[in-house]
Amino acid sequence: MPYIKIELTREGVTREQKKALIKGVTDVIVDVLNKDPHLTHVVIQEVALDDWGYAGEQVSELRERGITADKK
Amino acid sequence: MPYIKIELTREGVTREQKKALIKGVTDVIVDVLNKDPHLTHVVIQEVALDDWGYAGEQVSELRERGITADKK
Amino acid sequence: MPYIKIELTREGVTREQKKALIKGVTDVIVDVLNKDPHLTHVVIQEVALDDWGYAGEQVSELRERGITADKK
Amino acid sequence: MPYIKIELTREGVTREQKKALIKGVTDVIVDVLNKDPHLTHVVIQEVALDDWGYAGEQVSELRERGITADKK
Amino acid sequence: MPYIKIELTREGVTREQKKALIKGVTDVIVDVLNKDPHLTHVVIQEVALDDWGYAGEQVSELRERGITADKK
Amino acid sequence: MPYIKIELTREGVTREQKKALIKGVTDVIVDVLNKDPHLTHVVIQEVALDDWGYAGEQVSELRERGITADKK
Repeated sequence: MPYIKIELTREGVTREQKKALIKGVTDVIVDVLNKDPHLTHVVIQEVALDDWGYAGEQVSELRERGITADKK
Repeated sequence: MPYIKIELTREGVTREQKKALIKGVTDVIVDVLNKDPHLTHVVIQEVALDDWGYAGEQVSELRERGITADKK
Repeated sequence: MPYIKIELTREGVTREQKKALIKGVTDVIVDVLNKDPHLTHVVIQEVALDDWGYAGEQVSELRERGITADKK
Repeated sequence: MPYIKIELTREGVTREQKKALIKGVTDVIVDVLNKDPHLTHVVIQEVALDDWGYAGEQVSELRERGITADKK
Repeated sequence: MPYIKIELTREGVTREQKKALIKGVTDVIVDVLNKDPHLTHVVIQEVALDDWGYAGEQVSELRERGITADKK
Repeated sequence: MPYIKIELTREGVTREQKKALIKGVTDVIVDVLNKDPHLTHVVIQEVALDDWGYAGEQVSELRERGITADKK
């Protein structure tokens, strides 16, 4: 019985990306644990940039200074 | 000190239904555990259909194919 | 697709009480929202008294002073 | 590796207050645990008054009756 | 800034499986969202069978009746 | 009505440190939001090092390689 919650900053995640996250994470769970996918739920929660703090600062402040979370 | 989080898909849940959920769940907690209701908090979180995955698919896709979560 | 998390202090909750919580909360969800119980998951998480804070104090301290969460 | 989630009722919390919450909570974590702030994430989740239950009632109902959560 | 919580029943998940879950889920996040893995945290929470309810019953009861969550 | 969850790796956090976390975080909430502390709950959840993933690796692996989360 797995339940997975994905929290991420709201920065233009598309419906297709959400679909890929749900498919990809469910596949990992099913492959690694051999679980029935019909017992696997995934919930995505997008968080506004003012509401996520990193190292004591709002991510909205970091973004205004040009700091991103993108892979280098 | 109980805290209860209810996550459900956003599909037209009314204010009255939320009221009934909060009342009903609190009553269960108080009855089973004999807890003071003033120490019992219930939080409801509605989740958009694109953001809930079941068996690897977005619930929005399931609904488009006519698959519901209704009791049979 | 409901998922419910119940967090409560670890104070001798029995297996029978957990069974009653799961049954009771699921019944409320099914009754109020007309949801298929096979899509309803309930997770109970017991929290040690040192790990729950109320009004700025550990519950273990409150209990040592004779303050309980019991219904009056 | 700390992660902190702050859930509170949506009642006019300003961007400045969120900034102060993130800064203040991160400082507590860093001071008490000596953790690197770059490994400390804080997420704020505001909850609508209809969606928060206290003592079996929606907070929206309590507010309509003039009951607040303000410090006395 | 993604944070992922994986909740699953405590049924002999090995350290290697946890390692594979963390690696697999992080890869999905990084691939789909192009996020820096150093900003991606994954937390696994195992839940005792008495503490997970499905369709109103404890999973421990379901397992005693021979009902598993294994992929068919 | 604030509820705060603090998740951190289980690495020898003492009862006194937990007490300081609960006191410190509650004070921040009360000061910034002017909330009644009797409506403020804080829950600490310690997570085993095998169960926390950072940048795709178990923290237990990082610690074995001498990588800590301590403030520099």
